[in-house]
Amino acid sequence: MAGEFDLIARHFAHPAPDSFLGVGDDCALMPIQAGMQVATSTDLLIEGRHFLPGTDPYALGHKALAVNLSDLAAMGARPLGCLLGLALPSLDDAWLSQFARGFRELAQSAACPLLGGDTTRSLSGITLSVTVFGQVAAQHALRRNAARPDDDIWLTGTLGAPDIALRLLTGALPMQATLLDATRATLERPDPPMAFAPLLAGVAHAALDVSDGLLQDLGHILSASHCGALLWYDALPVHPALSGLPEDLLQEAVLGGGDVYQLCFTAASKDRDTVTELAEGVGIQLSRIGRIIPQETLTVLDGQGRPISPTVRGFDHFRTV
Amino acid sequence: MAGEFDLIARHFAHPAPDSFLGVGDDCALMPIQAGMQVATSTDLLIEGRHFLPGTDPYALGHKALAVNLSDLAAMGARPLGCLLGLALPSLDDAWLSQFARGFRELAQSAACPLLGGDTTRSLSGITLSVTVFGQVAAQHALRRNAARPDDDIWLTGTLGAPDIALRLLTGALPMQATLLDATRATLERPDPPMAFAPLLAGVAHAALDVSDGLLQDLGHILSASHCGALLWYDALPVHPALSGLPEDLLQEAVLGGGDVYQLCFTAASKDRDTVTELAEGVGIQLSRIGRIIPQETLTVLDGQGRPISPTVRGFDHFRTV
Repeated sequence: MAGEFDLIARHFAHPAPDSFLGVGDDCALMPIQAGMQVATSTDLLIEGRHFLPGTDPYALGHKALAVNLSDLAAMGARPLGCLLGLALPSLDDAWLSQFARGFRELAQSAACPLLGGDTTRSLSGITLSVTVFGQVAAQHALRRNAARPDDDIWLTGTLGAPDIALRLLTGALPMQATLLDATRATLERPDPPMAFAPLLAGVAHAALDVSDGLLQDLGHILSASHCGALLWYDALPVHPALSGLPEDLLQEAVLGGGDVYQLCFTAASKDRDTVTELAEGVGIQLSRIGRIIPQETLTVLDGQGRPISPTVRGFDHFRTV
Repeated sequence: MAGEFDLIARHFAHPAPDSFLGVGDDCALMPIQAGMQVATSTDLLIEGRHFLPGTDPYALGHKALAVNLSDLAAMGARPLGCLLGLALPSLDDAWLSQFARGFRELAQSAACPLLGGDTTRSLSGITLSVTVFGQVAAQHALRRNAARPDDDIWLTGTLGAPDIALRLLTGALPMQATLLDATRATLERPDPPMAFAPLLAGVAHAALDVSDGLLQDLGHILSASHCGALLWYDALPVHPALSGLPEDLLQEAVLGGGDVYQLCFTAASKDRDTVTELAEGVGIQLSRIGRIIPQETLTVLDGQGRPISPTVRGFDHFRTV
């Protein structure tokens, strides 16, 4: 960091935790517990592509970190810290203050302190790069390829609301102010299950965050694990604000809607009580939504056990793999 | 990664080392030796700001990683791996192939494998984000604030050549083809001392990479360590191609020229032989260029022991701190 862009850093300045080395040296340093591995993920977020010009800066700061934290959760990793690269076309103090507050508040609540970064002036719009680090016991990382036949399939949180909010905001659905009010926070301030995910290391088999839609993301687990699944449509945790929607739209939003940033994972059925107790212990919503099968097919069953063939993109994607 | 930009990933695909988890899951995983800390650094590189449009893609791939590896070297850390974020306005297979080759060849020679990343389409120019990880014994990281009075000051490699090459390429100096030929590689393909730096952990006190110019960067060590330095101008390792330059220009390039990505470090004078032997063991050029003093001043002495007062920016910067 150099020159006027040093000013940016002040919006983010906070002391690094004991035994960490934060902003100001060549590298950030993080202590790792013996036997743990480092899990890391990075995202580039570009204005006009990943977020709209004029996006509320508080929400943007929150979401930029949340989508990366979600990747840590999907490995069963406990957050250690993060780095932020920030390219801005100009210095807007009010914008920066709100962005930094959104980022920092989530960093604090998720115990994922900002340890360093890079700031520069961009020649066009805003570009963000966020890198997160976590630790997970070497043998217990939740990989995509570890689902086994007869595993239960579990999902945290609810489905559908971010997709409906996005449709309302982009005009793909006619505006309904009450529905937007009830769903918008799920799109703009996703809340990945950071306290719950590390508890699954050593219990769950495979895991993924639902960023591209339940069927598509579950499809990634099934492809990597060389197995298939039955999903029970009536067991899916639909967001309560969506109860009045037409069935076709609801099904698309629930099975295919992205931006959920909740955890889909599989675990042995013998561990069903353990999984339930872990979720109750941290107070998160958890639903058992299906079962892994050896045949490499993904079938969604209705309440009468009849297959549904939804036409959402994620499902097509899986079927053509 | 999604859609056509999956193609990009193929240019970078290579198997991750044993016990690492690379591209394709939610996170990359890295094993850490017991007692080691993770050192990490990130950079955003923007076309038109950090590199010129039309920059040779092989050189860009090399340099994007080299400047980050240099930050690991400056902590005394041994590389573990890296992540790459790549935003491109269009898919240019020839460009990508060369960029990936420059990045990959340095990643291999520095034992810093690419473990994952993010690719997307940009709306304007090329944006790169590179994050590197290394490990260093918890008590032996080379911090900026650890220089002590009577320490020797050491420098790897040579000074001045990248600055002269940049002046020739930007027209700040009239073109001299022979001089450009002899200096260009130092600017475009910096070669941080990756094998040497980890050997200094536990031996050296403070360290920094010379990215902004020797006086400015040494100034950072002195400010953080609350001490000063004597530098011996005649002991500075001037790049041999610069021998015919006018003295004023030479002094500016050597004392103030950036983009060097060599290591400036301090160590106790009792360890002088150890330091020399470590450098000889890995075959790198090393020069003893000065001494740390308790007074918080930075003085450059000529061959007769008289103070030089160069007018380069870095020196001014330090004096006004």
